Amino acid sequence: MVLTVTLNAALDVTYEVDHLSQNEPVRVRTVRARSGGKGVNVASVLAALGTDVVATGLAGGHRGQTIRAGLRQAGIAEALSPIAAESRQTVVAMADDGTFSEYDEPGPTVSAAEWHGFLAEYDRLLDTSELVVCAGSVPAGVPDDAYAVLTDAAHERGRPVVLDTSGAALRAAVGSGPDIVKVSRAELAAWAENELADEDAVVECARGLVPCAIVTLGADGAVAVVGSATTRVRPPRRHGNPVGAGDAFTAGLVCDDVVGAPLGQRLSFATALSASAVGLPGAGLVDLGVAKELIDLVTIEER
Amino acid sequence: MVLTVTLNAALDVTYEVDHLSQNEPVRVRTVRARSGGKGVNVASVLAALGTDVVATGLAGGHRGQTIRAGLRQAGIAEALSPIAAESRQTVVAMADDGTFSEYDEPGPTVSAAEWHGFLAEYDRLLDTSELVVCAGSVPAGVPDDAYAVLTDAAHERGRPVVLDTSGAALRAAVGSGPDIVKVSRAELAAWAENELADEDAVVECARGLVPCAIVTLGADGAVAVVGSATTRVRPPRRHGNPVGAGDAFTAGLVCDDVVGAPLGQRLSFATALSASAVGLPGAGLVDLGVAKELIDLVTIEER
Repeated sequence: MVLTVTLNAALDVTYEVDHLSQNEPVRVRTVRARSGGKGVNVASVLAALGTDVVATGLAGGHRGQTIRAGLRQAGIAEALSPIAAESRQTVVAMADDGTFSEYDEPGPTVSAAEWHGFLAEYDRLLDTSELVVCAGSVPAGVPDDAYAVLTDAAHERGRPVVLDTSGAALRAAVGSGPDIVKVSRAELAAWAENELADEDAVVECARGLVPCAIVTLGADGAVAVVGSATTRVRPPRRHGNPVGAGDAFTAGLVCDDVVGAPLGQRLSFATALSASAVGLPGAGLVDLGVAKELIDLVTIEER
Repeated sequence: MVLTVTLNAALDVTYEVDHLSQNEPVRVRTVRARSGGKGVNVASVLAALGTDVVATGLAGGHRGQTIRAGLRQAGIAEALSPIAAESRQTVVAMADDGTFSEYDEPGPTVSAAEWHGFLAEYDRLLDTSELVVCAGSVPAGVPDDAYAVLTDAAHERGRPVVLDTSGAALRAAVGSGPDIVKVSRAELAAWAENELADEDAVVECARGLVPCAIVTLGADGAVAVVGSATTRVRPPRRHGNPVGAGDAFTAGLVCDDVVGAPLGQRLSFATALSASAVGLPGAGLVDLGVAKELIDLVTIEER
């Protein structure tokens, strides 16, 4: 079983509207709400692929109940620990002409007791986990080194860890040696405090991050830096909203379809799966049929 | 006790943001959430004025629980009937330069059983009510003539009804003879299917609506048309966001401060209270101190 950890779970709310407008009320035509946060999105994709997965992490208040109920209704096993404060929501208003407005709430504050309650639950869940995916931001009240703590606990039980985070949480976690760190180019640049002018700079910087770093480059694909080896993977061109493409990529790296396969094959599948997510309405969604068609169009080269 | 009815209760969410922006995520600095919907706002103002009030109506799902908990935490007695579907939210993003974006969700669908459950609860609440305020929209699944049904039930028990609604719900309710109907000029124009070019047209149209109609005119105040008498009330100029001013006006008409007073005095107080709400951050808020200062600046004339 893959265990995904989402410390800052969210309700992702999407509004369909005729047009965006300022200083006057806009009537929402259709409301869609999905359980979200990076780790939850990865769990949604894994479940869609038929990989055994449990989503854990923190979800709070009445909104947390909505997030948890949404996962269960979608047939995704969840073991989110409850907290008192309301979980955050993201609100995206999509107009018919493709323009959008997006508002991201900062998220709740977690108490020390709630954090330690989660750690005990996490420890229980490690019993039956084969691999842990830690993804997303760390809410207030949770220590910055949360992912280091979770990585150490997983390693004590012999479970590998895939990490996708940024900022202070990333900085505090790299020393604990997560087995794969996936970051976007912008997140790597922020970590390095360096603009990373070209791909060579990206590769050199990723080499200093962790022994196995995968840097996603948006529509240009990704580069994996494993020790002295560098693998460059490029998707076919796809147009559309890239929301959730990164989470689909992470799911594609660890799903049953590629378990035990060489890294190149995993990267190709992840890239095709990520490309299939482009244009779908919301994170956590992929189209496996499209991904299987795209996989032959993915190019891969050792640099 | 005043009973307020809110059939389409809402969670009113306000985001403070640095600036509005399209096609890129905007980080929310501060989140405020208030229980809302017109009748709930009226109840909030009445409670702030020290008038005994109970807020009833329909609130559903996890968001309905948040709405109800918010009222109880604010010390406002609530008897909202639960429904299965999630109540709506409104999302307003306020930028530092005063511009805003507002998104209004359409609201839940109510089952026939839920509607009849509410009617039984409403009937019980009428026992201890002196006056009923019905305010706001009617959600899907509730019959268009909902306010006629509620007005008839109140009148059978000898309770007067103040109604503030629009569209089909207003159209279906006027025949049941609510004691006061409060509408905005735009709502009256929509009811009449007439542009109402000037105030004479407003007065003439209001006279055809119900025996006691009060038409709010935004920053220009209001006109009350009672049989052949017409009273025109004007507030002092106030600048700021008028959200919730109409609900403060309704509360000012029925609160203990003016109970039993002549209509002119009630209109003056309602107008001053409404003006005190202008610029406050959210509906359901008034400043009684400011209202008492403004009341001497309100002008009133019989036309």
